[in-house]
Amino acid sequence: MDEVAPGAVGSLPSLSLRLGQAVFSTAALLFMSVGVEFYSYTSFCFLVTSMGLLIPWSCFLAVVDVYSLFLGCPLRLPGAIILIVAGDWVLSLLALGAACATASVVTLLLPANGYCSPGVCGRYQLSAAMAFLSWFLTASSSLFNLWSLASLRLL
Amino acid sequence: MDEVAPGAVGSLPSLSLRLGQAVFSTAALLFMSVGVEFYSYTSFCFLVTSMGLLIPWSCFLAVVDVYSLFLGCPLRLPGAIILIVAGDWVLSLLALGAACATASVVTLLLPANGYCSPGVCGRYQLSAAMAFLSWFLTASSSLFNLWSLASLRLL
Repeated sequence: MDEVAPGAVGSLPSLSLRLGQAVFSTAALLFMSVGVEFYSYTSFCFLVTSMGLLIPWSCFLAVVDVYSLFLGCPLRLPGAIILIVAGDWVLSLLALGAACATASVVTLLLPANGYCSPGVCGRYQLSAAMAFLSWFLTASSSLFNLWSLASLRLL
Repeated sequence: MDEVAPGAVGSLPSLSLRLGQAVFSTAALLFMSVGVEFYSYTSFCFLVTSMGLLIPWSCFLAVVDVYSLFLGCPLRLPGAIILIVAGDWVLSLLALGAACATASVVTLLLPANGYCSPGVCGRYQLSAAMAFLSWFLTASSSLFNLWSLASLRLL
């Protein structure tokens, strides 16, 4: 069987997942760090750190996907796929933790409580929403690659 | 092959994982809800809700484990194991999110900032730590059962 499992490394769905992750995590990082102050809150620093790890990871795997698609030869090394699944899993947990932490702090700082202006709070909220989306896409990538690993082992 | 995969439903390691989950999530719930006020913070309510879901789930599966151990006949229905893996996975994500949210809010409320007394803040921190431990055990159960599902399919 030479076809790739849907969503596994080297397929078009995987490339779109990776591009989505890169876009959403970059958006989360920019909404959080450009023009607003984030150093004062541990959770916001955590979000910036985890998005800063997720962006190069997604971009690197997007390049691997493009390379595999151009060569027409998907990545079928179980060792490499295990590494990708583990990396995706750890980064998705970090993204989920950061998104939850940011969302909970923003709820506490909301304009109703008078700790931040509506504009600034809105940007924090957008950043948390983008981090949730990048968590969702990273977790999906991890599951798709786990599935492809299982089907490789079954062959 | 009649032996059970280590950590799969109906084995002794699974029973100890379930008991650990029940103990840690009950501790998180009690530290958060008895004697201190948690209604004012969304994150603390989220923690109480997710621990309130995790406790009956763990207790129910601990009973299933004890039943399987006494009968000496492990649960080998793929449908039931898929349900258990999915339930564990969702509850572990909820527990991780709640633990991160609680930890981030506690960091903001620390006595240095003057929003809570050292005793109350300490209890919130203990509750977050217990929630992290119950997340870890639930995620482990989910992975062990996924492994046992894969080995069932391979047979």
